[in-house]
Amino acid sequence: MSPTASSQNFRAIDVIRKKRDGLELAPGEIKGLVDAYTKDEIPDYQVSAWLMAVVLRGMTRAETAALTDAMLRSGEVLDLSSLPGTKVDKHSTGGVGDKTSLVLAPLAAAAGVAVPMISGRGLGHTGGTLDKLESIPGFNVQIPVAEFRRILETCGCAMIGQTAEIAPADRKLYALRDVTGTVESPYLICASIMSKKLAEGIDALVLDVKTGSGAFMKSEKDASFLAEIMVETGERMGKKVVALITDMDQPLGNYIGNALEVIECVEILRGRGPEDLRHLCLELAAWMLVLGGASKTLAEARLQSAALIASGQALGKFRKMIELQGGDPRVIDEPKRLPQAQHTVEVRSAQDGHLVSMQCEQIGTACVILGGGRERKEDSVDPAVGIVLHKKVGDRVARGEPIATIHYNADSRADRARQLVESSCVIAEVPPAPRPLIHKIIGSSAEKN
Amino acid sequence: MSPTASSQNFRAIDVIRKKRDGLELAPGEIKGLVDAYTKDEIPDYQVSAWLMAVVLRGMTRAETAALTDAMLRSGEVLDLSSLPGTKVDKHSTGGVGDKTSLVLAPLAAAAGVAVPMISGRGLGHTGGTLDKLESIPGFNVQIPVAEFRRILETCGCAMIGQTAEIAPADRKLYALRDVTGTVESPYLICASIMSKKLAEGIDALVLDVKTGSGAFMKSEKDASFLAEIMVETGERMGKKVVALITDMDQPLGNYIGNALEVIECVEILRGRGPEDLRHLCLELAAWMLVLGGASKTLAEARLQSAALIASGQALGKFRKMIELQGGDPRVIDEPKRLPQAQHTVEVRSAQDGHLVSMQCEQIGTACVILGGGRERKEDSVDPAVGIVLHKKVGDRVARGEPIATIHYNADSRADRARQLVESSCVIAEVPPAPRPLIHKIIGSSAEKN
Repeated sequence: MSPTASSQNFRAIDVIRKKRDGLELAPGEIKGLVDAYTKDEIPDYQVSAWLMAVVLRGMTRAETAALTDAMLRSGEVLDLSSLPGTKVDKHSTGGVGDKTSLVLAPLAAAAGVAVPMISGRGLGHTGGTLDKLESIPGFNVQIPVAEFRRILETCGCAMIGQTAEIAPADRKLYALRDVTGTVESPYLICASIMSKKLAEGIDALVLDVKTGSGAFMKSEKDASFLAEIMVETGERMGKKVVALITDMDQPLGNYIGNALEVIECVEILRGRGPEDLRHLCLELAAWMLVLGGASKTLAEARLQSAALIASGQALGKFRKMIELQGGDPRVIDEPKRLPQAQHTVEVRSAQDGHLVSMQCEQIGTACVILGGGRERKEDSVDPAVGIVLHKKVGDRVARGEPIATIHYNADSRADRARQLVESSCVIAEVPPAPRPLIHKIIGSSAEKN
Repeated sequence: MSPTASSQNFRAIDVIRKKRDGLELAPGEIKGLVDAYTKDEIPDYQVSAWLMAVVLRGMTRAETAALTDAMLRSGEVLDLSSLPGTKVDKHSTGGVGDKTSLVLAPLAAAAGVAVPMISGRGLGHTGGTLDKLESIPGFNVQIPVAEFRRILETCGCAMIGQTAEIAPADRKLYALRDVTGTVESPYLICASIMSKKLAEGIDALVLDVKTGSGAFMKSEKDASFLAEIMVETGERMGKKVVALITDMDQPLGNYIGNALEVIECVEILRGRGPEDLRHLCLELAAWMLVLGGASKTLAEARLQSAALIASGQALGKFRKMIELQGGDPRVIDEPKRLPQAQHTVEVRSAQDGHLVSMQCEQIGTACVILGGGRERKEDSVDPAVGIVLHKKVGDRVARGEPIATIHYNADSRADRARQLVESSCVIAEVPPAPRPLIHKIIGSSAEKN
């Protein structure tokens, strides 16, 4: 892509027609469209027609990379080259109880891998890292870039929200996609995610692509395809990228809700917590350490991660980061300092048997109903509410035994949430076939390990 | 389609998604979208995304009829039921030298079939009926509906431009399609044409769908498909419709240009003029007479049409209509009263042989360059300029013999036009295989004749 490509003599209609007819767009055509749109030089109605043509015609890998590059370069690209070492981030496509970022950033930082993490808020049934962090009293995610860099230098990790300067084309395009039925395209999803992540100034990226009833990509096939194009896009742009296709057919870990998830992350950083969450955190961390050059092999990286948890160094990084971002680090030892819901109510099993499945999206929706998430972007979030699971898929349950506890503040919402959680659980005689937590690993870096 | 269907509770995003996913829309959903857009209740960017989904996913016959109906009902539908007899119109998809409307309206009217014809202007390489009529001094095509009806009652035919009241949804949708690469869909073309034609209050319609190098639909397959869906849409709405797939691989007749085409139409109405144009006019007229109930069979209708020309009755109707619409009827006997170009120049053959083909779109473009057509809607038209062909495809030509005469007013334009006409003609030893003028006839009414 020529950096001097200009939007002069650029005709949006020609680019729309070409994509409509299934032809491959040149990088300059894609850049012309993105640049002109970012500068308000072409109207929404032309871009939405083009987006729909992309949804239905798809994109080649070269087009996807060109779109990502154009969106990335629409704003500021952080230059972290003055910081020593490899900068690595992790991105998840989102799910229910998916809280690994809060564990991974301090854990990788403790191993000497810098993690400049720019995250999002929850929308729909999935949670968001920023909402979780903000449940810590005082924690500030709106930090200027200079301060972000300073915290990163001091602590090795920092976690903030997207700034206005990063990938403005993505913000504009996403808002348009949201209202024109053009969200659901792996190519557009890839460009949206990768443009923001690559604007962070990272060298490597570990992708956690979720699949299952609580994921955006329900089928493993769709998740794998998205993972493949994201890995290839990152690699075309000179980054090391690995994608893990991981399970989101039931919530990850036992705690769902903003403050509740912070508590569970502290547990993991203490070497405790639920098995599935600990396992996934250690695997994702191991990949971050390998791509970041802190470990030579995955096996070594797993041991190193476990040691950094056992020694308390990972938790120490978390404490330090909370402090540097204005939060109250006492929440780590005194979880009661986090917002707490006023009431709890149990969801109990109506029969003996095995928990065969949990409709994961329903449980996420139950958390939104309690106030723990957002239906619309402008909604505010109640940090205290949520759901604590006592049983996971495959577990034995006795009649009357609690499956989950609802933490709530408003009676009117508790009932609907309880019913949703109840109806999401299927209990039967025969235990279900076990489902792997990690379905697949994608990326040329993966082949070496 | 329920006439009470309302746009309340109508969510454009759901309709966009449904079409994107290839599902069939209900009539109420289509009506909701069209009504809301006509009332400015939904933004251009949602409608353009939907239009692109229609272009790439297509529409069922039921959807096409529902779209046509919704567009038709977006404005005024003329009620001509007080006029006796069947009201019939003819519509052509447009071409070069395609001037049959000026012959057909008076000819059918002379047979007692009322023709309420609402026409368009030329755009791109194709000419427009209104531009041709306006080359007649004084001829007024912007007539209020009441006056249109009065002329129709007096004379049996009237030819006007689209009013603001007729199918406003089509005007809005067409303007959006024009700038979003969504013109090229047979379903959208069908709905656009049929909604305007059916708003004229007609009972039957003869469609002249062009195919070949000068047509919008270059291939016979595409032209036939468009014809099929237009016929079915009209029939679903209770109208008699027949479509003729006719040739536009070379210009129709010998005269191209607004005033020149009026002269050629008068020739046809006098029983003279070129063979191809006369043949097509008689065939189209025969269908109008059959659908309009003036003749029982096509054979009878052909004889009747020829007789109405021979007796001068058809030309009389044309004279009468010109008079009633404010034009100077003396142009019929004194064609020099029509605008005349200041200069002419010949295009001569560079070799001996047969005229094997004429790139028809290029000849149309040459006429636009002379000033006889429009590149943009807002351009004005020079009625005097044009091209007179002395040879048609299949004719023998000698080296140096004139193939065409360019009628021009501006020297700078004449040269480019001359070059275009010259390069559009292919001359070779071996004569070309003859190409039929009428390729196919489509419609259930056609099967009876």
